[in-house]
Amino acid sequence: MKKWLRVDMSALEVRQEQPAEKYAGKGGRWLTSQFINEEVDPGCHPLGENNKLIFAPGFVTGTSAPSSGRISAGGKSPLTGGIKESNAGTPFAQSLARLGYQALILEGLPADKEQRYVLRVNSEGGELISAPELKGLGMYDTITRLREQYGDVDICGTGPAGEMKMAMAGICYNDPEYRASRYSGRGGLGATMGSKGVKAIVIERDGPGVEMADSDLFKIGQRKLAEALRNHDVTKPGGALNSFGTAVLINILNQAGGLPFRNFRSGVFDEAEAIAGETIADEVKKRGGEGMMGHSCSPGCVIRCSNVWPRKDGTEHVSCIEYESDWSLGANLDIDDLDAIAEMIYICNDLGLDTIEAGVTLGVAMEGGLAEFGDSEKAIDLLREVGRGTPLGRIIGNGAGLTGKALGVTRVPVVKNQGMPAYEPRSVKGIGVTYITSTMGADHTAGYTIAPEILSVGGESDPLDPQGKVELSRDFQATTAFVDSSGYCLFITFALLDSESGFEGMLETVNGVLGTSYTGDDVLDIGKKILKMERKFNEAAGLTRADDRIPEFMRREKLPPHDRVFEITDDELDQLWDF
Amino acid sequence: MKKWLRVDMSALEVRQEQPAEKYAGKGGRWLTSQFINEEVDPGCHPLGENNKLIFAPGFVTGTSAPSSGRISAGGKSPLTGGIKESNAGTPFAQSLARLGYQALILEGLPADKEQRYVLRVNSEGGELISAPELKGLGMYDTITRLREQYGDVDICGTGPAGEMKMAMAGICYNDPEYRASRYSGRGGLGATMGSKGVKAIVIERDGPGVEMADSDLFKIGQRKLAEALRNHDVTKPGGALNSFGTAVLINILNQAGGLPFRNFRSGVFDEAEAIAGETIADEVKKRGGEGMMGHSCSPGCVIRCSNVWPRKDGTEHVSCIEYESDWSLGANLDIDDLDAIAEMIYICNDLGLDTIEAGVTLGVAMEGGLAEFGDSEKAIDLLREVGRGTPLGRIIGNGAGLTGKALGVTRVPVVKNQGMPAYEPRSVKGIGVTYITSTMGADHTAGYTIAPEILSVGGESDPLDPQGKVELSRDFQATTAFVDSSGYCLFITFALLDSESGFEGMLETVNGVLGTSYTGDDVLDIGKKILKMERKFNEAAGLTRADDRIPEFMRREKLPPHDRVFEITDDELDQLWDF
Repeated sequence: MKKWLRVDMSALEVRQEQPAEKYAGKGGRWLTSQFINEEVDPGCHPLGENNKLIFAPGFVTGTSAPSSGRISAGGKSPLTGGIKESNAGTPFAQSLARLGYQALILEGLPADKEQRYVLRVNSEGGELISAPELKGLGMYDTITRLREQYGDVDICGTGPAGEMKMAMAGICYNDPEYRASRYSGRGGLGATMGSKGVKAIVIERDGPGVEMADSDLFKIGQRKLAEALRNHDVTKPGGALNSFGTAVLINILNQAGGLPFRNFRSGVFDEAEAIAGETIADEVKKRGGEGMMGHSCSPGCVIRCSNVWPRKDGTEHVSCIEYESDWSLGANLDIDDLDAIAEMIYICNDLGLDTIEAGVTLGVAMEGGLAEFGDSEKAIDLLREVGRGTPLGRIIGNGAGLTGKALGVTRVPVVKNQGMPAYEPRSVKGIGVTYITSTMGADHTAGYTIAPEILSVGGESDPLDPQGKVELSRDFQATTAFVDSSGYCLFITFALLDSESGFEGMLETVNGVLGTSYTGDDVLDIGKKILKMERKFNEAAGLTRADDRIPEFMRREKLPPHDRVFEITDDELDQLWDF
Repeated sequence: MKKWLRVDMSALEVRQEQPAEKYAGKGGRWLTSQFINEEVDPGCHPLGENNKLIFAPGFVTGTSAPSSGRISAGGKSPLTGGIKESNAGTPFAQSLARLGYQALILEGLPADKEQRYVLRVNSEGGELISAPELKGLGMYDTITRLREQYGDVDICGTGPAGEMKMAMAGICYNDPEYRASRYSGRGGLGATMGSKGVKAIVIERDGPGVEMADSDLFKIGQRKLAEALRNHDVTKPGGALNSFGTAVLINILNQAGGLPFRNFRSGVFDEAEAIAGETIADEVKKRGGEGMMGHSCSPGCVIRCSNVWPRKDGTEHVSCIEYESDWSLGANLDIDDLDAIAEMIYICNDLGLDTIEAGVTLGVAMEGGLAEFGDSEKAIDLLREVGRGTPLGRIIGNGAGLTGKALGVTRVPVVKNQGMPAYEPRSVKGIGVTYITSTMGADHTAGYTIAPEILSVGGESDPLDPQGKVELSRDFQATTAFVDSSGYCLFITFALLDSESGFEGMLETVNGVLGTSYTGDDVLDIGKKILKMERKFNEAAGLTRADDRIPEFMRREKLPPHDRVFEITDDELDQLWDF
């Protein structure tokens, strides 16, 4: 029987509990979103004592299923004001699951706002330890110190930005080599963690493992799934993601005219090649970065799309240059210098910032005159300012929406106050529908229609054609909600969309662990149930169809090179929820 | 036939037009709210080219009706994101009406964002004049220069805060002696004006006057109304408002435990006496301020509740120390120094800031650690920072909600992102209902239940008793929507609530001007129609019943001295709109 660990920060008490029956068989996003619906007042302040922060590994997380080291963090978002599930791949997820915890919950607020705590978790439960020495510490030093103190534990924490309760703050986790590099980045949950005075959580690795209802079935599925991943061009060893990292998308999106440039003024970046995944791989090799490509975010991943970027002398600079970060801190700012981008990612990792929101915010700041586009030195300094907690740092640190308001900028690429990721909705309509309608605010991972629109994976869909994109996004969003609950990395879907046997295998692993008999139909049904649940919370929190809208300028400004606006009407967008 | 003046800032064109039939007989808030519903896209950016700014005098503005020099400014609010009507008493209103303009509309955006324009209006129409010399100029100097250039015109303008598109920016008008002191303060419409590049509007005073359908009826009504105003304790010459100004309320609210102190931590300010209206009157006399009390905001006012505050040497410092400003920049900040409060009002008037939002924001800033409560020097400096346009200034200048977010403060007394005025909702429940449910965001003038709850005017209603407050607020809000359309100052209602003949007289003046035969029932019906219209816009703009909510802390923190929370439930609040 799985257990919960509930931490009451008002009383400074930790207790294990048996979850209610209604939570049986839930995991990841399904669990976090259901829990928030049941236990969090939609009207609460995201940084107040009534918000709760929940961590939940997926169904199969902690098992030997390939690419399944995911954890969902959930709460009311300080950034969007709605529900938030932000997931990450990290050994922390696996260790938590192997200790038998279905969920870990932080609630209440400590009386002493200046104190910092470490929550130490093992199979027996948890304890809160005062840790004033960690106050204001960057995530790199935080992880180093905690390892010195606690040994080979897995760690999650919030950086100085989260301690300062900034809405751009994510939750940081270690990677397999203890780098501060894996993130539940989006939506500001690092600020919620900071508001609760929990600087870090350390988890012992000695868990007995994940109970299985049918381990034979699990093994059958595991093999099929691994086989599918090993045979798909996108996910296979030596394939696109493994060889070049996610930044392989830079050239692809640029060629499609969908790589947002200079705060979404164009879909083309003439210097894209300089920051492309292929260039990263070349340069890593040139600098002697042995083993720095094809790195994994958590043990047991087949895809291994992460990387480590070396300095010119071959020593490690940062992990990792993800496509989204490469775009947000590069193309979006007219910056083509990978070392500058790497430095910005390093700062984000250390301060505890969402790299997407950081780059989108810097784009708005440049639009507002705080720096010239292309000025990487100034961009780096603006990011450092966040850590200084100055008024300027507090503007930047609270995201693109607030920065736009503070500076009086009208071209602000956000939906539900969350910055848009690395795909231009005017050039790729389906992902636009996802940005606009997702319960999460603008989020590509909520319904990654890029697969058929750009990558010809799971069929083909003309990115410029508005027809059918509402249905496409709806199906992707529902499927994703299930995948986000399973513990699998979303990237397995590249293979599953093109492999029936892989999809079957995925279901068999889930059924093997849970004792369920889910079919393909259940995937969609459960996904839709989760979406509706999230939508219900958002509505009660004040987010309506009027918040399912694209920024005004994207309906008016034609985007080069295709010279298109976003044409899908509000009425059509509203139909996404007709199910 | 009344005409409109429409200014297209994109084309830099000004044209007179005949309003459509549907606008016949409309004025003030009725006209601005109907116009916004008809012509402004609820999804538009408040600082973008699709927002429009409309000015409309009331039905009887420009006539000799007593206390009727009011103008409504309307648009989509940069502060609340919803509809906004913000009205002011000023000779500008009267001059506009006498020139025969029912409305003056600014729309579009100029191509050159750095240019500034003056709109000059006379009975023939208007012209746009480039005025680069006014860029960034404070409102005092702006009015001085415009008078030098244009003579005895009436003036409205936006200060440096509005030019910087800050959501705390109001629209400033001259008083009868050309002081920059009268404000459509609330909701940030000064930023909308600033976004359109219109620094100021100058209006000639030579208008032929307001056409009347039945001038005899008007005169009959005018006498009855004047009589009622002259005989009511609150409004009569030598009465409470005339003798002590609106700050007469300081002691009254303090005694009722409803004067918010230190960012709404208590309803009592021990030093209230030091900033009370009675003290102001004494001190003005002591300093030799002959004629500085009982001043009027516009010619023809019977009530004359404005004042001028002198420095210690008797020379003029600022006009005026209104109750709301006295509270927001005084009691709310634990500041009991009238000279410091006067200096802050002066800064607000000059920069073009809403004094209520300014004080509420400083309270939140103090809560967030930017200054100690009670530190008037630091408070003054924080306000000056707004004019400097620094990052800190941009935080403060964008209001309490944004400041709370930037600083991670959870005790933020706003509704729909607009700062709460000078009455504690936990101690005066009816005004709380108004704050929460008003289409305008937290706004006392939207339904001033203080009359029966605190002043025993128009009946009596126990301020601490939640019973019946939804109905009370609804009736007040509806009546107010009519009064805000009439051109009358809301303060005439003190007399009308206790005088049938006065109320009759008010209606006769309106019917005399418009040729209507409105009755008391029509007042409520029209008022409700206006409210529904505004609500409709807000819903389309994304404001729902989830935005008709009191800040969470007011439901949890018991407020001294009565130790009460705000008890009226969300369900009860939602019933306000059941009509």
